[in-house]
Amino acid sequence: MTRRRKIYEGKAKILYEGPEPGTIVQYFKDDATAGNGAKKGTITGKGVLNNRISEYLMLQLAEINIPTHFIRRLNMREQLVKSVEIIPLEIVVRNVAAGSIVKRLGLDEGKKLPRPIVEYYLKNDELNDPLVLEDHITTFNWATLQEMDEIVSYTLRINDFLRGLFAGIGIKLIDFKLEYGRLWKDDEFHIVLADEISPDNCRFWDMASGEKLDKDRFRRDLGKVEEAYQEIAKRLKIIPEKNFEVIESSNPEHME
Amino acid sequence: MTRRRKIYEGKAKILYEGPEPGTIVQYFKDDATAGNGAKKGTITGKGVLNNRISEYLMLQLAEINIPTHFIRRLNMREQLVKSVEIIPLEIVVRNVAAGSIVKRLGLDEGKKLPRPIVEYYLKNDELNDPLVLEDHITTFNWATLQEMDEIVSYTLRINDFLRGLFAGIGIKLIDFKLEYGRLWKDDEFHIVLADEISPDNCRFWDMASGEKLDKDRFRRDLGKVEEAYQEIAKRLKIIPEKNFEVIESSNPEHME
Ligand SMILES: Nc1ncnc2c1ncn2[C@@H]1O[C@H](COP(=O)(O)OP(=O)(O)O)[C@@H](O)[C@H]1O
Ligand SMILES: Nc1ncnc2c1ncn2[C@@H]1O[C@H](COP(=O)(O)OP(=O)(O)O)[C@@H](O)[C@H]1O
Ligand SMILES: [Mg+2]
Ligand SMILES: [Mg+2]
Repeated sequence: MTRRRKIYEGKAKILYEGPEPGTIVQYFKDDATAGNGAKKGTITGKGVLNNRISEYLMLQLAEINIPTHFIRRLNMREQLVKSVEIIPLEIVVRNVAAGSIVKRLGLDEGKKLPRPIVEYYLKNDELNDPLVLEDHITTFNWATLQEMDEIVSYTLRINDFLRGLFAGIGIKLIDFKLEYGRLWKDDEFHIVLADEISPDNCRFWDMASGEKLDKDRFRRDLGKVEEAYQEIAKRLKIIPEKNFEVIESSNPEHME
Repeated sequence: MTRRRKIYEGKAKILYEGPEPGTIVQYFKDDATAGNGAKKGTITGKGVLNNRISEYLMLQLAEINIPTHFIRRLNMREQLVKSVEIIPLEIVVRNVAAGSIVKRLGLDEGKKLPRPIVEYYLKNDELNDPLVLEDHITTFNWATLQEMDEIVSYTLRINDFLRGLFAGIGIKLIDFKLEYGRLWKDDEFHIVLADEISPDNCRFWDMASGEKLDKDRFRRDLGKVEEAYQEIAKRLKIIPEKNFEVIESSNPEHME
């Protein structure tokens, strides 16, 4: 295999030039950060699981006609995606108050919101990803109003779909973060879902026990971090019920 | 004069029950706070000046058919206004980057924004007046979408008008904060401009020298705080060119 050019190394993934023009390889790392890099660590097997979980969810969303960047999974830790021009916003949907909104607006954690709230944060680590309004977004040309309308409507559909999917496996979808990009096709730019959907950027609470099954276990030192990611993969039937470590070692890359 | 019931004492004003139902007396204090109460002080004569400046600007805005709470000035420190149900938002318009947006979005202070930006902050001192999106506002019923549309359109008109008015007297209107309320009239609620417009909640920069002529002089200990408020009143021809202190003492309440 020829050596690929590394395009970018982020907090959770490395991007490599893909085999065809307009493609990118996402390599999923086990690295975990919280508090905008203040806390750093490793979650063993996270990269493998997130690669699988994101593949699964992107494919499910494609089924309901949400355009996504996903092309195909390449191996345990890598997937091939369409290279897009990332819109520099983190789009957050909240169904239940948790995380930053609790402190910001003085809400009670766990309180169901009257309806889902869609928030926009500028993707800028130096500025601590500040909350921004549509007015900031359009004034600084981060996205157009038409793009935002499309993003919000996709986001609400994705929320409905994922709430249903996770409810079906006993998990409450509290909130999650999405990224979108622009893809040039048929002589115009199209909005497509990009980045990843995984326990790194979702809050999942077990419906029966209320137990957190996401990155909050790492953020708050709750223990059983790896187990939470595995539990999500198991319930989605992405990995069999038996211990996950076995799978990684028994599935060499060429057998994928 | 009979003793009036105090309704509320805020950081800059006291509200008393008005003489007729549905009215309120706003008493303008000299008290000044900054950083959400972290810094406290007095700006001698501020209350008298803000009472006059706010009267003048509200009357000017009524002229261009912006509905306001203002009825009439009662004396040096008091004005009669219609009692409204305050919408718990601070509506901020920015023409030039200054104040909190500089740090939040990494802008250069003094940089003209590509177009005016309208921001919403929840009016809640305990939570430090957090920035909120339309989605938060409608979800928590702080205002309806129709109310916000009306508020934004009034706010942009007020901005155009005030930019012109201040440009005419050599002052650049950098940004300002408004509050709106609901007034029950003709069997429905109407949005009206409330609170005050004064150097307490505007940023005014002298066009020639760039000098700040507003509460930033107090916030940042720049000195000549009283003089800045007086300068605004003088340029608006609300007080004569001669020293303002003379006026307060030579105008007893009953002569107003
Ligand atoms: N399809 C895509 N095309 C181009 N860039 C992408 C695509 N999907 C995700 N990205 C970007 O790749 C990076 C993913 O790596 P990650 O470790 O999550 O980075 P970060 O630390 O910036 O969040 C992000 O910056 C994300 O915006
Ligand atoms: N027309 C009005 N009717 C009722 N309340 C008003 C009206 N105009 C302003 N207010 C409220 O009166 C208070 C004014 O006092 P202020 O010292 O500015 O208070 P604060 O410290 O809460 O900003 C504000 O809370 C403002 O919302
Ligand atoms: Mg990321
Ligand atoms: Mg006030």
